[in-house]
Amino acid sequence: KKILVIPGDGIGQEVTAWGQKVLATIANNYNHTFHFEEGMMGHVAIEATGDPLPDSTLDKARNSDAILFGAIGHAKYDNDPTLKVRPEQGLLKIRKELGLYANLRPIKLFDELLEASSIKPEILRGADILFFRELTGDVYFGEKKRSEDRSSASDLMIYHRYEVERIARKAYEAARTRRSKLCSVDKANVLEASRLWREVVQEIAKEYPDVATEHMFIDNAAMQLIKDPKRFDVVLTGNLFGDILTDEASQIAGSMGMLASASVGDKVGFYEPIHGSAHDIAGKGIANPLASILSAALMLDISFGLKTESQRVIKAVEATLRQGYRTMDIANKHTENEFIMGTDAMG
Amino acid sequence: KKILVIPGDGIGQEVTAWGQKVLATIANNYNHTFHFEEGMMGHVAIEATGDPLPDSTLDKARNSDAILFGAIGHAKYDNDPTLKVRPEQGLLKIRKELGLYANLRPIKLFDELLEASSIKPEILRGADILFFRELTGDVYFGEKKRSEDRSSASDLMIYHRYEVERIARKAYEAARTRRSKLCSVDKANVLEASRLWREVVQEIAKEYPDVATEHMFIDNAAMQLIKDPKRFDVVLTGNLFGDILTDEASQIAGSMGMLASASVGDKVGFYEPIHGSAHDIAGKGIANPLASILSAALMLDISFGLKTESQRVIKAVEATLRQGYRTMDIANKHTENEFIMGTDAMG
Ligand SMILES: CC(C)[C@H](C(=O)O)[C@@H](O)C(=O)O
Ligand SMILES: CC(C)[C@H](C(=O)O)[C@@H](O)C(=O)O
Repeated sequence: KKILVIPGDGIGQEVTAWGQKVLATIANNYNHTFHFEEGMMGHVAIEATGDPLPDSTLDKARNSDAILFGAIGHAKYDNDPTLKVRPEQGLLKIRKELGLYANLRPIKLFDELLEASSIKPEILRGADILFFRELTGDVYFGEKKRSEDRSSASDLMIYHRYEVERIARKAYEAARTRRSKLCSVDKANVLEASRLWREVVQEIAKEYPDVATEHMFIDNAAMQLIKDPKRFDVVLTGNLFGDILTDEASQIAGSMGMLASASVGDKVGFYEPIHGSAHDIAGKGIANPLASILSAALMLDISFGLKTESQRVIKAVEATLRQGYRTMDIANKHTENEFIMGTDAMG
Repeated sequence: KKILVIPGDGIGQEVTAWGQKVLATIANNYNHTFHFEEGMMGHVAIEATGDPLPDSTLDKARNSDAILFGAIGHAKYDNDPTLKVRPEQGLLKIRKELGLYANLRPIKLFDELLEASSIKPEILRGADILFFRELTGDVYFGEKKRSEDRSSASDLMIYHRYEVERIARKAYEAARTRRSKLCSVDKANVLEASRLWREVVQEIAKEYPDVATEHMFIDNAAMQLIKDPKRFDVVLTGNLFGDILTDEASQIAGSMGMLASASVGDKVGFYEPIHGSAHDIAGKGIANPLASILSAALMLDISFGLKTESQRVIKAVEATLRQGYRTMDIANKHTENEFIMGTDAMG
């Protein structure tokens, strides 16, 4: 198996090293052969080549079986919205080029972290959500314009029937293997793109009569997610709403530092933490490596079909948490017997 | 003062009656003269006239000093995204026609409700946020299209410089009267409209050097709002992101049933609960009337400059909660001495 590792920016560098180390250990212990290559993307790639996604990285990506990615972004660009070349363009381009239209984001709380969240434990206990976020359409990829005098700016929010169909089917298939509930999130009371989304999901729903379908407006969903996370099983949504809801849902899992994601579609699978480059804590060795390690676990399962190995990684994460090891983001001042460690110790 | 009352759909009918009753009581006790008129909007107006915002309602609105509105929407339209005439069009049109570009949504927890939220009390205590949601631009009002074969659909997310400037100034002015902190929320790492938004806010920020400005991406903001609501003072954002964040923020105030909003701009002020028409509980007399009553309090303060009278209403709400009266949505099974009441008793 050929694995491309793209650490990217900020804490991406330090946490991805741990994801890779875990993959190497699994290969060693279970007699698999993983070939690792490295690629550049994001701010680091702009600095080195002027291009957030150099052709060499894209070529390597196309020739790999799976990709482990870190994070992207840099304050320089955030502070100057007029810059033309931007790190995020690299990530958006690789998602589009590799046809990674389905982004899976499992949200599950490890029992050990029940107290780490800002939400009450009794609200959280038992919550287990699988998000399907559409990843190659929506206002992310519609035409962007700036008027000549720069006084107005626009992005086209657009969806095509086939884009909704293919991710809806994937979400319904997954719902069947879980609690057979699917909630589709849109803003059909205002947006035409959302009305198409809802029409198509209603059609696909007929192919899955065994799955209970619910439609919810994004504003309501953003509220329900905190009010009663247990009501959700599979959540299906577009690119923008999925971006917002899954970051919000990180509070259900205690911390963003715990959340892994898998992007799939045409062929190659792409695995990355949900968190960003977090430049404020980068290089200090205090970032939580578990999202990258859990991304590696998703790779083993989804791209390689290695379920036992994937479970082994998850069990190791659980054991580490049970022993009391914590990075800052999941430390809970109210619990005793906790060791707050750096990235290395957690890894 | 001429007040137009538009109850609208679902629980809008029953809660708005209470908002109006409170206004009438204030007029009586403080020797003011309020003239009430009634107007139709939403599903009820479609049923009666075929138009979600009949001209007669719009005329009355233009000739009033302030408007008390209830809620809009009906499951019939939510279940059939192909319907052309929809209740929400009435609300969007009145916002646009009256130039209501600034939607103020104060989020503050009444001490009595500290336990009613799904968020831990220690995270909530002291949270006090004022949202400024832009209300007449963004993807809500950009061109909507459906391809001829109906296989693709789009909405234009668009912002003009002047739209951002005028709401930014309002938000900064408000920040000065509070804790002098402003957080502007956008998605400038992906969207061109957001990059314009950020550019303009950065410019306006220079006029308010005494206010500390922060820029945050919407995904991060959706997370921070739950993780640490106390970090926010004034939050400034676009129409779509504001819609999502303020519904989410309802969990900070214990329930959506507590949240009032004021929409201002050109001349007439428009006051409404943040909650929707909630047809599932409509007509049962169990809806929380406090959001409508608090909307009336905002009207007294913002449109009429009657600060004492406005405070009187808020104090009455506090007293009611302190006595233990609760509607279902804010009832907390863990607290004793609570009376769960219907809308009438709460009102
Ligand atoms: C970095 C950014 C472009 C990206 C997105 O918005 O998709 C990130 O927030 C994510 O969720 O993967
Ligand atoms: C009913 C709907 C059109 C409306 C909106 O999205 O603006 C509502 O959710 C609100 O927040 O006032």
